Amino acid sequence: MVIDLNCDIGESFGIYKLGCDEEILNYVSSVSIACGFYGGDPTIMHKAVKKALLKDVAIGAHPGFYDLMGFGRRNINITPQEAYDMVLYQIGALNAFVKAEGGKMQHVKPHGALYNMAGKDKKLAKAIAKAVYDLDSNLILYGLAGSELIKQGELIGLKTVSEVVADRTYQYDGSLTPRNQSDALVKDKEEALERVKNMIKYGKVKCQQGYDIDIKVDTICIHGDNEESIAFAKLIYTTLVNAGIEILPFNKI
Amino acid sequence: MVIDLNCDIGESFGIYKLGCDEEILNYVSSVSIACGFYGGDPTIMHKAVKKALLKDVAIGAHPGFYDLMGFGRRNINITPQEAYDMVLYQIGALNAFVKAEGGKMQHVKPHGALYNMAGKDKKLAKAIAKAVYDLDSNLILYGLAGSELIKQGELIGLKTVSEVVADRTYQYDGSLTPRNQSDALVKDKEEALERVKNMIKYGKVKCQQGYDIDIKVDTICIHGDNEESIAFAKLIYTTLVNAGIEILPFNKI
Amino acid sequence: MVIDLNCDIGESFGIYKLGCDEEILNYVSSVSIACGFYGGDPTIMHKAVKKALLKDVAIGAHPGFYDLMGFGRRNINITPQEAYDMVLYQIGALNAFVKAEGGKMQHVKPHGALYNMAGKDKKLAKAIAKAVYDLDSNLILYGLAGSELIKQGELIGLKTVSEVVADRTYQYDGSLTPRNQSDALVKDKEEALERVKNMIKYGKVKCQQGYDIDIKVDTICIHGDNEESIAFAKLIYTTLVNAGIEILPFNKI
Amino acid sequence: MVIDLNCDIGESFGIYKLGCDEEILNYVSSVSIACGFYGGDPTIMHKAVKKALLKDVAIGAHPGFYDLMGFGRRNINITPQEAYDMVLYQIGALNAFVKAEGGKMQHVKPHGALYNMAGKDKKLAKAIAKAVYDLDSNLILYGLAGSELIKQGELIGLKTVSEVVADRTYQYDGSLTPRNQSDALVKDKEEALERVKNMIKYGKVKCQQGYDIDIKVDTICIHGDNEESIAFAKLIYTTLVNAGIEILPFNKI
Repeated sequence: MVIDLNCDIGESFGIYKLGCDEEILNYVSSVSIACGFYGGDPTIMHKAVKKALLKDVAIGAHPGFYDLMGFGRRNINITPQEAYDMVLYQIGALNAFVKAEGGKMQHVKPHGALYNMAGKDKKLAKAIAKAVYDLDSNLILYGLAGSELIKQGELIGLKTVSEVVADRTYQYDGSLTPRNQSDALVKDKEEALERVKNMIKYGKVKCQQGYDIDIKVDTICIHGDNEESIAFAKLIYTTLVNAGIEILPFNKI
Repeated sequence: MVIDLNCDIGESFGIYKLGCDEEILNYVSSVSIACGFYGGDPTIMHKAVKKALLKDVAIGAHPGFYDLMGFGRRNINITPQEAYDMVLYQIGALNAFVKAEGGKMQHVKPHGALYNMAGKDKKLAKAIAKAVYDLDSNLILYGLAGSELIKQGELIGLKTVSEVVADRTYQYDGSLTPRNQSDALVKDKEEALERVKNMIKYGKVKCQQGYDIDIKVDTICIHGDNEESIAFAKLIYTTLVNAGIEILPFNKI
Repeated sequence: MVIDLNCDIGESFGIYKLGCDEEILNYVSSVSIACGFYGGDPTIMHKAVKKALLKDVAIGAHPGFYDLMGFGRRNINITPQEAYDMVLYQIGALNAFVKAEGGKMQHVKPHGALYNMAGKDKKLAKAIAKAVYDLDSNLILYGLAGSELIKQGELIGLKTVSEVVADRTYQYDGSLTPRNQSDALVKDKEEALERVKNMIKYGKVKCQQGYDIDIKVDTICIHGDNEESIAFAKLIYTTLVNAGIEILPFNKI
Repeated sequence: MVIDLNCDIGESFGIYKLGCDEEILNYVSSVSIACGFYGGDPTIMHKAVKKALLKDVAIGAHPGFYDLMGFGRRNINITPQEAYDMVLYQIGALNAFVKAEGGKMQHVKPHGALYNMAGKDKKLAKAIAKAVYDLDSNLILYGLAGSELIKQGELIGLKTVSEVVADRTYQYDGSLTPRNQSDALVKDKEEALERVKNMIKYGKVKCQQGYDIDIKVDTICIHGDNEESIAFAKLIYTTLVNAGIEILPFNKI
């Protein structure tokens, strides 16, 4: 049995540090790197690419809204054309660093509000999938399991990867509980771990409405925000490995 | 006899319009497209790429300082590493649009203050040349004739193109008279035309110190700012063609 | 009979020019000046303030979303606290220029998407009204006639001004037809003029659903985008003056 | 004997945290708050103002270059007019928060590269001093001891405050050793403390060229970047208080 563990990195900006990029790289098989619009700047991106290549972790682009002040977490009502253009811009920029360092970009995963909006809005999802496809039809599209983004990626001919988030709760329709709600996060680590195991084993998760919903799990998103996150990442990683599950990115399966 | 005529396009931003991109495309063989840092945004870049491909004009990236307020014309004392990273970011972003539209990027030309600083600062010039080389060693580097940028481009193994500017005056050392000086521009169109002809024919230009200096001319930079610029562009184009000089980009020579 | 004619100015940015600020100042009694977030930069703001003071036109701040790429016309789901803070920031900045030039700020009018969202969202409207009140309780709040913004302004104790837009169509609930709809603008100038006259005379406007709705008119928003807008502004101004209506800002009534 | 201890705060941005603002407020008598151009955003500024008022610490504005990526530490060759406008903009914005919270702004201190450039460039210094004066002629101008900024502030009629930096080394001309030089910082805390005491007691500091230079000390700049900085701030504070020196801002002297 094989699974991908992924984390978002490269989210620092200029003098501002965010996340323990080096530590989390020990416990993931793929990373999505911020592309300068809501986090990351060219020098941060370059460093993140180098670190990931050193650890032999698969690299993806993590494009989002042009909103550093809101960290890409605020919905902005852009047109599908704007979404296409801003995603193509960002993934092209990250791709340049990966290419310059002798690597190959594996995937694209939208960030924050763009990820959530593209999970429900068909036109937005289609525009993003097309931008990815137009840069390189061999790229993999990461999206929320069961989302519109996954559907549109498949329709256009991209290989897609269904993601679950280890420490977030789910709604009945498979969407993530919005961050501004008090029950958005699974705060108890043991519970989060139990949920992850059930998702992998049975393809089920208990939604906030109280019953089990189906969920497809190709990759699990974990975080490297702080020491506590790193400890949890290590716990998930170790638990899965001890359960005989291999942690591998898609370009190695 | 063959020469390249180039112009900077795609310098609009959001609602703000700058330059007559469609008109100038009739009179040039190559264009350098702004990459979003001092002008241009993803949607503007995409449109500019499409227009250039439609007219079969060679496309280059035109990276500059992250300074929309100053239109990339204010010196900023960045490190060579920052220069490398910000150039790689921008040219990667533009490259994505060119690739998505089925084209191939021909060249890179730094913009404004970055162009001028890289003309004199060896470390900056080297960092920029390396960023271009690392994205694609077949890219051509455009730089001011006789500048440090041209030297560093050749040292790293890039094909370089020496540029002269039709309506700008020169200093004794071959640098452009800074824009904030009153004699920076050749305002008389006939005089500008005469200078261009002499540069092509004899490889000489009269500097602001009053004597002729040697100047290498591979490409001539013209402008598409307004109706007057377009008229002058047409005049140069027609004069050169009538003189039996073919106007061609380097990827066609 | 007295009415205020207002226009948005100072919307240029750096090298980018937008609007015929000097011309439109001949036909309005008050202006709202962009504050750097979606248009305007410190130098543009300063110039706009000087021009308005020279023409003895009342000055207001025109704060909007931090979205230069979208010109403040794209909805962003900010919190009321973020709205309060970003409005206070912008109006404080503009106020500094007015104060430095010896003037006195008359009013505040939100821009674009913020104006529209605050017209319907009670919490957002309240936050904006409070920011205005907290800077100076003597400031006047301009808002769409009949909007939530006007209500919240009155509740907090601000003097409010109900605005109609000369060349925009209305929905049954008094809101402006969104710009991305084909019938958002009244393109025929005669028709626009007729509508303005009816609004002033009878307090009525025909909505897009086909019937007359009540509308309160304290000020009429006109535009100075281009020559055509200026001609229309002059026509409205002249027509009103010839009809014996005095054009005056609120700080002179 | 009385001295002012000051610190820069409010330098976080969006999700990015920088500095231990609450802790450092225990050991200073005045703070300079970032104004959104190189750090700080409206919500961060608002919070910083509230915290300072709660601790009864005097508030100043800390304007700098529009360069978040470089944290305002990179020289940008702006014109004096641009300097005037961008300083007036930023101090007006901060002033709005102070006014809204019922406080009164005490001073202005330029940040980073702007502080250093204004220390040597007469025209820039004059423009900044004028912007401060034009907002409110009762504001105090903080500048590097012996700098051009202090001179121009006095010439225009502002009260000025000569600042020394506790943990930075000095050049023979009284300027700070640039941050990109290896000897810019006084790393040994005991040595830094000794230097501070000598500056206060004798008005002298040993420059990097090896001899003592005169230095005027009205205020000492300390930092709240991390735990170590806080510990050093506490040490300075305690040492001075124990030496019978009162720590007070200028609006209380």
